[in-house]
Amino acid sequence: MGIGARMKHALSVTRAQNFAEWYQEVIAEADLAEESGVRGCMVIRPWGYGIWERIQKLMDARIKAAGIENCYFPLFIPLSFFEKEADHVEGFAKEMAVVTHHRLKAIDGKLVVDPDAKLEEPLVIRPTSETVIGHAMSRWVQSWRDLPLYVNQWANIVRWEMRTRMFLRTAEFLWQEGHTAHPDKAEAMTETLRALEMYRSFAEGPLAMPVVAGEKPENERFPGADATYSIEAMMQDGKALQAGTSHYLGTTFAEAANIRYQDKDGGLQLCHTTSWGTSTRMIGGVIMVHGDDDGLRCPPEIAPQQIVIVPMLRDNDEDAAVLDYARTLAGDLRALNAFGEPVRVLLDTKAIKASNKRWAWIKKGAPLIVEVGPRDVAGGNVAVIRRDRLYTAEGKLASAITARADFVASAAATLEDIQSSLYAEAKARLDAGIRRDVTDLAAHYAGDDKVVGWVEVQWARPTGDALEAIVQQLKALKLTMRNAPLNAAPVDGPCFFTGENAVERILIGRTY
Amino acid sequence: MGIGARMKHALSVTRAQNFAEWYQEVIAEADLAEESGVRGCMVIRPWGYGIWERIQKLMDARIKAAGIENCYFPLFIPLSFFEKEADHVEGFAKEMAVVTHHRLKAIDGKLVVDPDAKLEEPLVIRPTSETVIGHAMSRWVQSWRDLPLYVNQWANIVRWEMRTRMFLRTAEFLWQEGHTAHPDKAEAMTETLRALEMYRSFAEGPLAMPVVAGEKPENERFPGADATYSIEAMMQDGKALQAGTSHYLGTTFAEAANIRYQDKDGGLQLCHTTSWGTSTRMIGGVIMVHGDDDGLRCPPEIAPQQIVIVPMLRDNDEDAAVLDYARTLAGDLRALNAFGEPVRVLLDTKAIKASNKRWAWIKKGAPLIVEVGPRDVAGGNVAVIRRDRLYTAEGKLASAITARADFVASAAATLEDIQSSLYAEAKARLDAGIRRDVTDLAAHYAGDDKVVGWVEVQWARPTGDALEAIVQQLKALKLTMRNAPLNAAPVDGPCFFTGENAVERILIGRTY
Repeated sequence: MGIGARMKHALSVTRAQNFAEWYQEVIAEADLAEESGVRGCMVIRPWGYGIWERIQKLMDARIKAAGIENCYFPLFIPLSFFEKEADHVEGFAKEMAVVTHHRLKAIDGKLVVDPDAKLEEPLVIRPTSETVIGHAMSRWVQSWRDLPLYVNQWANIVRWEMRTRMFLRTAEFLWQEGHTAHPDKAEAMTETLRALEMYRSFAEGPLAMPVVAGEKPENERFPGADATYSIEAMMQDGKALQAGTSHYLGTTFAEAANIRYQDKDGGLQLCHTTSWGTSTRMIGGVIMVHGDDDGLRCPPEIAPQQIVIVPMLRDNDEDAAVLDYARTLAGDLRALNAFGEPVRVLLDTKAIKASNKRWAWIKKGAPLIVEVGPRDVAGGNVAVIRRDRLYTAEGKLASAITARADFVASAAATLEDIQSSLYAEAKARLDAGIRRDVTDLAAHYAGDDKVVGWVEVQWARPTGDALEAIVQQLKALKLTMRNAPLNAAPVDGPCFFTGENAVERILIGRTY
Repeated sequence: MGIGARMKHALSVTRAQNFAEWYQEVIAEADLAEESGVRGCMVIRPWGYGIWERIQKLMDARIKAAGIENCYFPLFIPLSFFEKEADHVEGFAKEMAVVTHHRLKAIDGKLVVDPDAKLEEPLVIRPTSETVIGHAMSRWVQSWRDLPLYVNQWANIVRWEMRTRMFLRTAEFLWQEGHTAHPDKAEAMTETLRALEMYRSFAEGPLAMPVVAGEKPENERFPGADATYSIEAMMQDGKALQAGTSHYLGTTFAEAANIRYQDKDGGLQLCHTTSWGTSTRMIGGVIMVHGDDDGLRCPPEIAPQQIVIVPMLRDNDEDAAVLDYARTLAGDLRALNAFGEPVRVLLDTKAIKASNKRWAWIKKGAPLIVEVGPRDVAGGNVAVIRRDRLYTAEGKLASAITARADFVASAAATLEDIQSSLYAEAKARLDAGIRRDVTDLAAHYAGDDKVVGWVEVQWARPTGDALEAIVQQLKALKLTMRNAPLNAAPVDGPCFFTGENAVERILIGRTY
């Protein structure tokens, strides 16, 4: 079954032409999500939600393997819970959805808020759950024997962002948030870094998305935290995406919520707490790291379907044999294991043209697309499209006629190879995208249409006004400090900004 | 390892003494959930949430097996979406949480709602998602080729109930809601009944909870539905719990949201839609169907841990051998399969007294509790407590010294036997609890402290004022009509209420 040359790509806009528009088009054309008609909220469609279900399953297994159990805490947080921690309030008060009433009434056929049903205390929709979980922890922790205390929840979160962008910044999003309490700083810091490392290996594993793990500068800390760590991924436009964070909260939230324990000597001590989270934002990262001008390329480990079989049906006598062949093939492929799980195979029998199906699955980024027509049945073959290598050197669609048995024998290994190839491609781009020799940021970042990547500099890590001056200087260039990589080389010179002795290296870049 | 007689039960109140208090005590003592400090909202603790995760996993597999994909829709619903469907509004307007503002500000250290951040259109927290999903369906359905359309979502829901009770009726709860669109009534009705049957078999399978599936009377229909079906379970106090519902919505929501399709002849037709849901309320049902005076008895299929091993450690030299023995035992048990899945085994090594652990696991309802002490190690034995048969005929705790090999060889079968025993016990109670010979409801239900169960009567299924008169007559006796069982015997007499010819049989009872 030959497939002719295709000079145009499947999307109407390329990454080079307009990265932001390209991103929106991938989301639409891959059926990942769409606008809901509710301000800042999206509908996550089956293929997008299927990716989230894969992420949930694999992340949840890692969380449980660390001995952490899931709970569920209220969506609503009373205002008084927030008032106890000033920095935390300061950080979130400007973007919280507030429930003030609990009833509606109809007046002349119009629905209005019933003024008689005003809540005594307004309730905030959780923008994060430190306060309400701290309240529970204060009940659960009495003695050193109750520590460490680990909880995690999968939940929806609301932050009333002014400018929203699907998956990256939506008013409502889905996430997991881990919260732990410990007897001292050392143990809490160990947990903070354990969660960070879990996120790094998750991003670089299932998401095939290379990241830099490091500590955020003081001005970028989570409101109320003593230290914030992040994983930062580089998108194909060179911008950074913060894809997961882990916070050492010191005793801030323990003081606010009164989380204390009796130590072995009978003394009363404050707990040291941590929190860490990842969200549906990761899907935005996957799109911008792996997508190409034909749509998404979904890493096999998180693809809802890893192999899609498209039977070439022509409403004639041969269809039965083609379907039969395709069904047997699907069964054989489902008996395989890749990444330690059964291979996920879809036989697409929808009543639409086979070539439309092919391109739909290319846009969705199914890792392997297998077309089967009467000639394949006769020859014992399949036509295989490997999504990460879509075109031949001549620009033709790279559909490879392969003996059926050979394809089945190698399919699991091919999926694993696609996963590692996607990672290698992105890793090479990340490594090439970090410059360490830049002396003039303004010149380096001049011009808005270049892919510039990140710059690593040494700095003295100043605080207060000196830090604020740097933040403003960077802001004028639309730059931010991303993080101080944990695995950076030792410092060997002066601070890029102040000329003092540097104490660490830090990444600078544009960001989402 | 002998275990002495225990005359008292683990809970301070028995079912017979005060069923409502007993229910609360099971929830507290089994660490299922607790009050959150937020009105009407609970914290679901790890053992309770673990049961929910099991329910989700097993229900989700059934939903996916029916070819239904998961999506995610917004938490917020604009008021204008509700206004389009009058009956629906009427049913929910009185219990909706309303977001009116999107920002707070601090005044003199107090947090207040910022009056400058009032939303132009208030947003309701979803009490159910027909309106917002209908809005999406109107975009997704164009032609007959797009039908049937199936979606499901797992989400949190808010209904501002005046009186709340953990799991049964909380302001926020977790659920799944399926929504489907079809070309005609016949197909939509088939789907409505398919979902109902899925719920029946789920309740009677994984939950071991016998139910009666049937159609709700008109006055109990979902707001906006043409027909509502339910599964009703009988609690140990004889009351009914509606544990799942499935609705045929006719064209009501299709008209409101404009869900139309072009038929094969080019004409524009309204879709017929359905919706169906089950929630964390099922956990309340499991407690009240299977719990006893020692706490929860968790059906093995939904137990987060099916076998809990408690090592009898004494801070001496023998501990290492006991732990070693217990670990090997856990490994052997985890290699088993029950209900088509690997057996879930916990080795409880927490630093608390073994007898406290034993009773904690009894209260939580772990199906099998295995105690291992030095004598068991020496003899190659284990001491097994089967949670559903806790006491001997003499009232002693029934801990059976069993050869380790025999226990391992029979453990999977024992778990499956516990599951079917719990079902059989509840089924016998349900069957015995339905009376078909009652002629005087007032006399039958006289006295508040009796377990009376349900009454099945024949009725003419009147509507309007005649129906309302019956509803009020029952209400005076604190009774409601539960449903008209699908598998009821044919009618053979006059209407219990009106004397007209009966058209169906209907169940009457007290309810949660």
